[in-house]
This record gives sequence, C-alpha cells and structure tokens, in this order.
Amino acid sequence: MSPRLRHLTTLENLPRETIERLLDRAESLRDACAHGTRKLDVLAGRTVLNLFFEPSTRTRTSFELAARRLGADVVNFDIGLSSTSKGEELFDTLHTLEAMHLDAIVVRHKRSGTPEELVRHAMSGVSVINAGDGNRAHPTQGLLDALTIRQHRPDFGNLTVVICGDIRHSRVARSDIDAFTALGVKEIRLCGPAELMPAAGDMPQGRRYDDFDQAIDGADAVIMLRLQKERMASIELPDEAAYFARYGLDRRRLALAAPGCLVMHPGPINRGIEIASDVADGAQSRILEQVGNGVFVRMAVLNEVLAR
Amino acid sequence: MSPRLRHLTTLENLPRETIERLLDRAESLRDACAHGTRKLDVLAGRTVLNLFFEPSTRTRTSFELAARRLGADVVNFDIGLSSTSKGEELFDTLHTLEAMHLDAIVVRHKRSGTPEELVRHAMSGVSVINAGDGNRAHPTQGLLDALTIRQHRPDFGNLTVVICGDIRHSRVARSDIDAFTALGVKEIRLCGPAELMPAAGDMPQGRRYDDFDQAIDGADAVIMLRLQKERMASIELPDEAAYFARYGLDRRRLALAAPGCLVMHPGPINRGIEIASDVADGAQSRILEQVGNGVFVRMAVLNEVLAR
Amino acid sequence: MSPRLRHLTTLENLPRETIERLLDRAESLRDACAHGTRKLDVLAGRTVLNLFFEPSTRTRTSFELAARRLGADVVNFDIGLSSTSKGEELFDTLHTLEAMHLDAIVVRHKRSGTPEELVRHAMSGVSVINAGDGNRAHPTQGLLDALTIRQHRPDFGNLTVVICGDIRHSRVARSDIDAFTALGVKEIRLCGPAELMPAAGDMPQGRRYDDFDQAIDGADAVIMLRLQKERMASIELPDEAAYFARYGLDRRRLALAAPGCLVMHPGPINRGIEIASDVADGAQSRILEQVGNGVFVRMAVLNEVLAR
Repeated sequence: MSPRLRHLTTLENLPRETIERLLDRAESLRDACAHGTRKLDVLAGRTVLNLFFEPSTRTRTSFELAARRLGADVVNFDIGLSSTSKGEELFDTLHTLEAMHLDAIVVRHKRSGTPEELVRHAMSGVSVINAGDGNRAHPTQGLLDALTIRQHRPDFGNLTVVICGDIRHSRVARSDIDAFTALGVKEIRLCGPAELMPAAGDMPQGRRYDDFDQAIDGADAVIMLRLQKERMASIELPDEAAYFARYGLDRRRLALAAPGCLVMHPGPINRGIEIASDVADGAQSRILEQVGNGVFVRMAVLNEVLAR
Repeated sequence: MSPRLRHLTTLENLPRETIERLLDRAESLRDACAHGTRKLDVLAGRTVLNLFFEPSTRTRTSFELAARRLGADVVNFDIGLSSTSKGEELFDTLHTLEAMHLDAIVVRHKRSGTPEELVRHAMSGVSVINAGDGNRAHPTQGLLDALTIRQHRPDFGNLTVVICGDIRHSRVARSDIDAFTALGVKEIRLCGPAELMPAAGDMPQGRRYDDFDQAIDGADAVIMLRLQKERMASIELPDEAAYFARYGLDRRRLALAAPGCLVMHPGPINRGIEIASDVADGAQSRILEQVGNGVFVRMAVLNEVLAR
Repeated sequence: MSPRLRHLTTLENLPRETIERLLDRAESLRDACAHGTRKLDVLAGRTVLNLFFEPSTRTRTSFELAARRLGADVVNFDIGLSSTSKGEELFDTLHTLEAMHLDAIVVRHKRSGTPEELVRHAMSGVSVINAGDGNRAHPTQGLLDALTIRQHRPDFGNLTVVICGDIRHSRVARSDIDAFTALGVKEIRLCGPAELMPAAGDMPQGRRYDDFDQAIDGADAVIMLRLQKERMASIELPDEAAYFARYGLDRRRLALAAPGCLVMHPGPINRGIEIASDVADGAQSRILEQVGNGVFVRMAVLNEVLAR
C-alpha cells in the first residue's frame, strides 16, 4: 500500500494508488451522506486552521464544512491582504500557529510553492494542505475533478479530456493534468489563446489546440477555466464577445463532443464569457456535482493526513 | 394544524396558528433556558449558513447563537459588499451552497424579495430564512416583537400599538404589522414625518398620525424605529434635535400612554434622537428583552424549518 | 483559599495565591495535552464571545482555541474599526450581548480601563476577560510570561528579569511587572530610550537603565518588547539600525546575561529591530513556548471564571 500522506501540497508524482485511495474514500463518504450520515467524529478533538492569504469564500467554506463534518474544530485565521506574507514573517506566523497545537493548516497563497515552504519550515507534526498556490497547484480541485469524471466515466484509459481557457496561469489545469495522468487518461487536450497557453515544454502531457472545434471533437469531458477579466488586455481578441466566439462553450460546440460529454468548470462561472448559460445549466453540466464532490474530497484528504 | 413551514421569508399571510406555534415554542425554549438548559442537540449534524449581503453583526450573532444552541454547525459566508449579488450570480452562489449540502441559509439582502427568489431558485431541500430584505420584511423581528408584547399583554384583542419613526423604509414595521394583525391586535397606529410615512394604500392596517402626542395617547406598546442619519436630508425638520422634539420618546410623552406601556426598539438605539436615555433605560423599557427573545424566536424558527 | 475570580481585567493587586492557582491549572492542562488530551468538555454549553475593537488575529485565535478546547462555543463579534466604541454605545453593545445569554466576553480595546467599565455596567452574570486595553493591562500575557519563566526558573526569589523597549506604552510590561511582583521576583530592570521609559513614579517596582549592556548583566530572563514603527519619530535615534545597536538583543549582549538566560518576546517579532534573528531562533529563545503557554493560560482563566 502506498504510504499515508502527511501533507497534500501537490498531486505531482503522487502514485495512482494514493489518488485512488482518496477518491474511494471520498466516494464512500458521499454514499454515507446520501444515506443520511451528515457528521462523523473521526477527527473529534482535532483543530484545522484556514490560512487564506487570498480571499476565497467558496473554497474556505468547502474546507470548513469538510472539517466540521469529520468532527474537527475549525478556526479561520484571517490574514489582511496588506499583511506581509513572505519570508521570515510567514514562517513566524507558521511557528506561532504550530505552537498553538494545531493539527492541520489549510493554506492559500498567491506565491507558488508556499505550501512546500511551510512543510519545510514546520517544526511540529502539523499537516499542510494546499488550497491553491499561485499558478502551480490546487490538488483538491484536481481530485474533485477526477472524482466527478470517474463517477460517470470510470475507464480513464478510454477518456479524452479537453481543458479550455487560460491554461498558462491555471493551477486547476496543472492539478487536473496531474490527477488524470496518474489515473491513466487516454488523452488530454489543451485549448486557448496563444498568449494563455503554457510555455514551451510546460505541461507536456497535453496536446495543444488553438481551434476549440477541433479540440472538443469527440471529447468525453470538457473543463472550462475561469477567465480573469484582467487577462483580456494580454490577448489579441478585442473583447469578451470575441473570446466567447472563439473559446466559449455553447450548444453548437458541445454537440461536436462525444455524446453525453461532461461539462465542468471550477467556478465561479462567467456566463457568456467561458460558457453559455444554457450549457452551464443543461443536462450535461456537472458543475454543481463538482462542488458537492469538493466537500467529500476535502473530507477524504483531511482524514488521510490527520487519522492516527 | 397549520402545515410546518419549510422557509420563512415573510409573515404576510401566515395563519395565526403558525405564528402562535412559533411563539409558543420560543417561550418554552426561554423557559428551558431559565431553568439552566443552554444547549440542545435537536439539530445535531445540521449546518446553517449565514449569507449576509448587508453587514449586521447583531442579527448574525443572534442567528449564530440560536443555531449553535440547537446543536447545529454554523458557517458564516462573508460576502464582500463589492461582490455582485443579484441575478444569475446570486443564484449561482445559491446553487453552489446547496451543492455543499447545507440545511438552511439565513439571508440578509438590501433588495426586497431576495429571499423569495432564493426559494424559487433553490434546487434542493435547503430552507431559506429571511434575516431582513430591503424595506420589505424582517420576519424574526416581527415574531420577537410579538413575543415580547405577548409576555406582558397576552390579550391582543385589547392591544393598541404605536410604531413611530421612518415607517416608509422599515421592514421591521411591515413584519410587526403582519404579526400583530394575525394575532388580532385591536389597533395599530403609525406616526412619523410625512416624508417617512408609507405611500397611500401601503400598510392599510395602520391608522396614521402626524402628532406623536395624539398617537401615543392610551397606547399599550410603543415601538420606536431607528432613524438612519441620511434620512434627515429628506425631511423638513432642520436637525436631529427638532426630530426628537416632534417624534422622540421622552418621559412626558410616555406618560400620555397607558400605564405600564411597553417601550420597544429594534436597536441599535440612537439616544436623544428617537428615544431619551432615561426612557431607554427605564422601568418600562423592553428593549433588552427583545434581544433575548430574538435568540429564542430564531431557535424556534430554525427548529420549525429543520426538524425532521 | 483566595476567592474564585469572576472577571479578569488586570493582575494588579491579585494575590500570589490566585496567580499561582491559575499557573498551576495551566500547567496541568499543558501536561494533559502532552499526554494526548486535546479537548475537555468542562465548559460544554457555555458561550464565549470575542469582542475585539482592535484587530489581533493571534490573540483572538489563542482565546478561540482555548475556549473550544474546554468545549465552549465561540462567537466572534466583529466590530468595524469605524464603529463608535465608547460611552453609551459601548454599554448598549454590552447589554445587547448580555441579553443573548453569553457566559464570557473577551474584550480588546484601545482605551485603557474599558474592561473595568464593562464589569461596572454589566447587568447579568457575564464574565469579562481583558485581552488588552490601551497601555494598561494584558493580564493573560502577564500570566503566560510568568508561566514560561516558572517552567525554567521556578525560584522567583532569585530571579532577575529585564524588560527592554517601549516600556511606557506597553500593557505587556505592566502586566508582567504585576505578575512577577506578586510571585516575589528578586529584581525587575527596565531599559529603553528615555522617551519610551515610564513617567516618573510609574512602575516603581522596576529599576531603570538606559544602557542595555548594564541592564542585561547577569539577568535570568529578558523580555524584548515590540517597537511600533511609528514610535521611531518620537525618539532621538535616527533609524531602526541605531535602535537595534542600542536596544536590540544580539548574541554579544545575550552573553552578558546569566548562563541560559531566557529570551522572550510577546510577538510578533521585528527581526533586526528588537532582536537578532539568530537569537530569536536560538536555543535560549522561549518565544514559541510563550505562544503555547498562552493557550493553556487562557484555558485556565476561562475555566476559573466560568466553572460553576
């Protein structure tokens, strides 16, 4: 059996067995919930601290619910955006929190690599869980996307996934690729404006497309990424309508994919920019399933790193 | 028996029986608390989310305490004031929260009708509780005001209540009128500057007064509304002192009411503007009882909508 | 036995027996934690409210963890910095919170004396715990500093402590002096720029030094205070480097102290201003022990004031 994780900072290089163990556990938690089990006490007496240097109410709430449903206490340590959050001061904050006998720190930070820095500088047994660092990794998002796909298309060896949008700056894309690759995905296709595609040599697992119609052809799942509005300035397209025309997901394009192609988005969605409203709300949309799976995946991760 | 409520968005059109059931339950929770019961576990495993688009630490805390005392978990979902909070984005937020398997959403929003919109767009079994929407309704305030009055003047058929101040913009006044009317109040009197009185045809249950001395004459309860400072610009009176002289509650005026007239205010009070300090702190003041009843009423409402 | 405390607003005039009882209890909670006890339920059903008029995530989190580990519920009542927080409005807030049946209020306020004002105006049995008021008192910091010293140097009768930095404006220094004096400390030495030393007659227990080399000579413990950057303007020294040269703790100076001298700081530290990094992180540093003791001391205090 692959060793139990002490931290979760990235999915890169995680063995397939570990990822499957987490997905299996998330699935059994989901089943228990469907049968009415809303709360367990496997983490009673444990304390999880949310340390968000970037605000994200959705992700913080998902982790908070996950921890509470396992019986843990949750403390939100609110870092003002103005506060220094690097170098010695970051580690002093870490050590201060460790000295308070926390069990896990869920961290989001705009600088890539911060979770690993925390792991390296941790002095006690505290577990670090990455809730998103810079452009680099968002491992629980990768897991919840894998869980959502596995639910409907369990055979990854026959799976073609498209990721479309701002791939270059996307920690979601990176963690998705790590998860899907570990699970033996057949093909990953990346599509977006040239300026938002990964640098040469980055994300080698993905086949690159500029034309979304070609990219989506026959795909089993399509993951649309959120476009940060400030990115529009860096690409050639004149406006959001032009972006939608080239890289947005509408019914016509979805019809080019395999029948029943799963429509996914990490949220929050920009309707009419990345995705047409009728597709976001349509029968093939798995966007809300992703949100639900997010809580179960985070429960599975907390359970993995904190179970005695 | 009137059917169990699934949501509480307004008191309008609620049958007397339902309102009395909620008040009775709040009363028995108050009794249990007085005998030392501080915490029940009837909602153990349930999650209540506070979704406040307008800040209100007092009301949020009251709901938070109510939910915890019933054994529920509470999550505060902090919406920045800058965040878009209407139309599709509001419903996307709702659906995201529902997908996380919440049991109840307590919502405050400056746009009237938002709680009903959430009920209409809800996809799962989540319960919606209105913590105040625009000028329209604040049903738990109406219930706690009714509970406070009933404690001291149980016979609503002989009850005359005055509401004084900015009636036009007051969700408190609307929910109070709904509650008192359902309970068979004898007379409701509304008093305030012409610019702050309800539009013609609005709030027909209330008899209108411009002269506070006449309005309060023989009244059994007087509810003073908070004056938003920015309203001063819209009325003819030159300053707050003039407002207090015409519409403030002082000892002289209170003496015109029935003996033992209950003095009420939804808080926070502006001393010397709506109400004289000695009256706010005097023997007839029920203002702090209202606060205490607020927690019990919210417990009763949460129990009503969430009990299996 | 000294009577049980109902409130903790200051250590001034507390009998040695009371302080020792709190330290003993904190110590036994620390021992229990070391043996794996992470959570007790002695305060189950009780509610502690954090009322911070000055932001302090570290101290708030320490109290929050302390309360939860005793089984209490915790509510953070967030007061905007813009909100009025004095006089009648402060007491109205207090009475509103009391009416919600809270058991304890943990208060931080920039105006000295606020906790005593709350005690005087409290109408119910709520306990008030001071988490820092103005320049005056920070009693749990005084206790945790005493606990940290006692752990390593139990004989206060032979103890010489130096406090260095902005003594004049330091509630930490005042509460430290109160605690150490009650415990029979041999000698307290105060050192800092003339402008930041206490006024004549204030803090008479401390022997005053301008020269840090003389002050630290043979000391058993040295407590470095945080320098607020805005204080630099009020002292004669030209910059932070000059401050560090005169009043900073580096290895050379620490060597002048008694062997094994305890290095302490209430945090967060300014590296290179009050203290050299290698000293802050060195073998003699007790800074993180202080943080850990902070949680245990706060548990002891909450238990003292709330136990039936």
